[in-house]
Amino acid sequence: MPTWYNRIAGQSLERLAALSDGIFAVAMTILVLDIHAPAAHAVHNENDLWLALCSLAPRLLVYLMSFMTLGIFWIGQQTQFNQLSQSDRHLTWIHIAFLALVSIMPFSTSFLAEFIGFRLALLLYWANILLLGLILDVSWRYADHSGLVQDSSHEVRCAIERRILIAQSLYAFGAFLCIFNTYWGIGFIVLVQLNYAIAPRFRPFSRL
Amino acid sequence: MPTWYNRIAGQSLERLAALSDGIFAVAMTILVLDIHAPAAHAVHNENDLWLALCSLAPRLLVYLMSFMTLGIFWIGQQTQFNQLSQSDRHLTWIHIAFLALVSIMPFSTSFLAEFIGFRLALLLYWANILLLGLILDVSWRYADHSGLVQDSSHEVRCAIERRILIAQSLYAFGAFLCIFNTYWGIGFIVLVQLNYAIAPRFRPFSRL
Amino acid sequence: MPTWYNRIAGQSLERLAALSDGIFAVAMTILVLDIHAPAAHAVHNENDLWLALCSLAPRLLVYLMSFMTLGIFWIGQQTQFNQLSQSDRHLTWIHIAFLALVSIMPFSTSFLAEFIGFRLALLLYWANILLLGLILDVSWRYADHSGLVQDSSHEVRCAIERRILIAQSLYAFGAFLCIFNTYWGIGFIVLVQLNYAIAPRFRPFSRL
Amino acid sequence: MPTWYNRIAGQSLERLAALSDGIFAVAMTILVLDIHAPAAHAVHNENDLWLALCSLAPRLLVYLMSFMTLGIFWIGQQTQFNQLSQSDRHLTWIHIAFLALVSIMPFSTSFLAEFIGFRLALLLYWANILLLGLILDVSWRYADHSGLVQDSSHEVRCAIERRILIAQSLYAFGAFLCIFNTYWGIGFIVLVQLNYAIAPRFRPFSRL
Repeated sequence: MPTWYNRIAGQSLERLAALSDGIFAVAMTILVLDIHAPAAHAVHNENDLWLALCSLAPRLLVYLMSFMTLGIFWIGQQTQFNQLSQSDRHLTWIHIAFLALVSIMPFSTSFLAEFIGFRLALLLYWANILLLGLILDVSWRYADHSGLVQDSSHEVRCAIERRILIAQSLYAFGAFLCIFNTYWGIGFIVLVQLNYAIAPRFRPFSRL
Repeated sequence: MPTWYNRIAGQSLERLAALSDGIFAVAMTILVLDIHAPAAHAVHNENDLWLALCSLAPRLLVYLMSFMTLGIFWIGQQTQFNQLSQSDRHLTWIHIAFLALVSIMPFSTSFLAEFIGFRLALLLYWANILLLGLILDVSWRYADHSGLVQDSSHEVRCAIERRILIAQSLYAFGAFLCIFNTYWGIGFIVLVQLNYAIAPRFRPFSRL
Repeated sequence: MPTWYNRIAGQSLERLAALSDGIFAVAMTILVLDIHAPAAHAVHNENDLWLALCSLAPRLLVYLMSFMTLGIFWIGQQTQFNQLSQSDRHLTWIHIAFLALVSIMPFSTSFLAEFIGFRLALLLYWANILLLGLILDVSWRYADHSGLVQDSSHEVRCAIERRILIAQSLYAFGAFLCIFNTYWGIGFIVLVQLNYAIAPRFRPFSRL
Repeated sequence: MPTWYNRIAGQSLERLAALSDGIFAVAMTILVLDIHAPAAHAVHNENDLWLALCSLAPRLLVYLMSFMTLGIFWIGQQTQFNQLSQSDRHLTWIHIAFLALVSIMPFSTSFLAEFIGFRLALLLYWANILLLGLILDVSWRYADHSGLVQDSSHEVRCAIERRILIAQSLYAFGAFLCIFNTYWGIGFIVLVQLNYAIAPRFRPFSRL
């Protein structure tokens, strides 16, 4: 039967996790290649070097934001995988599309760092985040309907879908802020990410 | 006995899979290094930036095609490995040759993106795909004859060989189309790849 | 309950270890991209080539120092992980911060190699090392208090904390030496690292 | 007791193998970054492109030689690891030194490709291979004397040591040939490597 190949292809969740870790690792490290040491001929004393270092600060901020973005989505993917019992060829391809968006993140980041005052740059960056969230949602719904999820409670299923929905609403609001000023939008997105990374217990956001 | 070393070398299928995941991950992420943000001095307003972004579209398309190519061959290799019980030194070297062709894919891609109207560039890209398929076929035949395959049914064995044969015939037809126009060839190859990635159930191709 | 997501996120110690290995591997290999072969047009005979190679020596030294730094912190992280039974979302984020500092090490290294006579460059490099040590300490204290550590003896717990404290004191002394001369500071740090790498049994330092 | 840390550090053979796979994967893929597509403005027709592609051939040959070199040493390290029951901090540091030499291989390769007619470039390349072999030998002797090797037969132990000795003698002879002509030396080394990769059964070399 010709459909045999599709039944045996892409079964290994371990290999898919290993490829994902590799692509996340390379993408996260490549981000820094965009931060160059200042040109030596323009630096004559410690003070010059200090000023040159300070001028790298905005680029460093964008780098840290992207590192956090990738960290959030790496944890999001890992959390789903921990609930799955195995993979199949469709889920594998859903995650290859997810990884394509991960590997394009260094480009979106460098584009935003270069044109930080332009609305289009922030919208492109947000589109990258939106698509990452969308594919994670598709992946979870597909896995749930295809019986790939091991016996998770109803709470776990809801928690994963709710997290994606709320996070994406906040990101969309951040992108919407660029109508007024791109810096407000970037600042809001960084705050949302910091909240997710630190998950402080004493603030209302921690419950999201 | 001097042949002892060859009997104990390269036995670990896990290490071979880990090296493969690493090389695929790096090659897939390096593809994007070829897409550069436009020069800042040529951009004065949102409209300029939009036009500059649009001019990157063809390069982005070639990038996506290569990402899909590597995804297809990563799944192909993984599917074979899932059927194997262990490796030996010959199989390990067959897959190191396979990985050499994987790691040269970013060069073939950048060569095609730069000279997209030239027949030679498409033929080189196709030769890369052809050799990848050929080595996967050699690997399967070798593993089958050397008793490295665990008890797979006859259907599984046929499915893997048939998949390689049909896919390579379609790619060869795509390369043949470059006699008329390289864009036709590229378009046909992208369609074949999309069919394999999405594997739609309602189309006759899904049975390949 | 909204906190469900945080309870199921980032549990996998294996995935965290795999991401760490990937980021360390890429950061360690990217260091070398900073060492360029000399320009061909300036080399006319074997003697020219020898002089060009010698002029790369200081850069090679800084590269080796950073490779050792990353090796030391990779072992430090691994030693902690071997004592843990599992991870949670807070520990995962502590280590994502740790990995951000790892991935910025190639920048600190290239900055130091370019401005090797400047105090600021050495202080930045030291700040990178200091933060890496600080986060490892935070990670160990958090894991210890949250019951993530499997039944380790009291000696193991003390050994890990003492090692971080003594190593960081020595690095701080090396950074302090830059008041007199940056080369003394770099030399002292390299000696400390060599001591940790070789761990000679016949010298008093081996007991640290 | 201050030596406690050294007793618990670097025990995990799996983590060391994962770091090694990562560094080998990055080094093997970075090799290709040295091969650039020809400049578009110098190419006007298919014939120009063909000539430009042919002029890349020597660089491609050096790339393939280095890919094989890394493949040989990756198998060599893996073969040793398969015989070990666990690691310790000394063995871990021996292999971090090994990995430093792996990650510098792209530099040695690019240096040789740029100055292919210079004896010094070939000697540097050979020194890289020699040190890799030397450290593998030290690693095996250390593991053997420290009881890290699981119950291997006497034949296995001899086979590993003999393989390193014979291979390094052949490489040294290749380096010696550069007294007459560097191309003879490179050719001889490639032949030795092809013999190890293919391990033909009908030739006397296969018994090495």
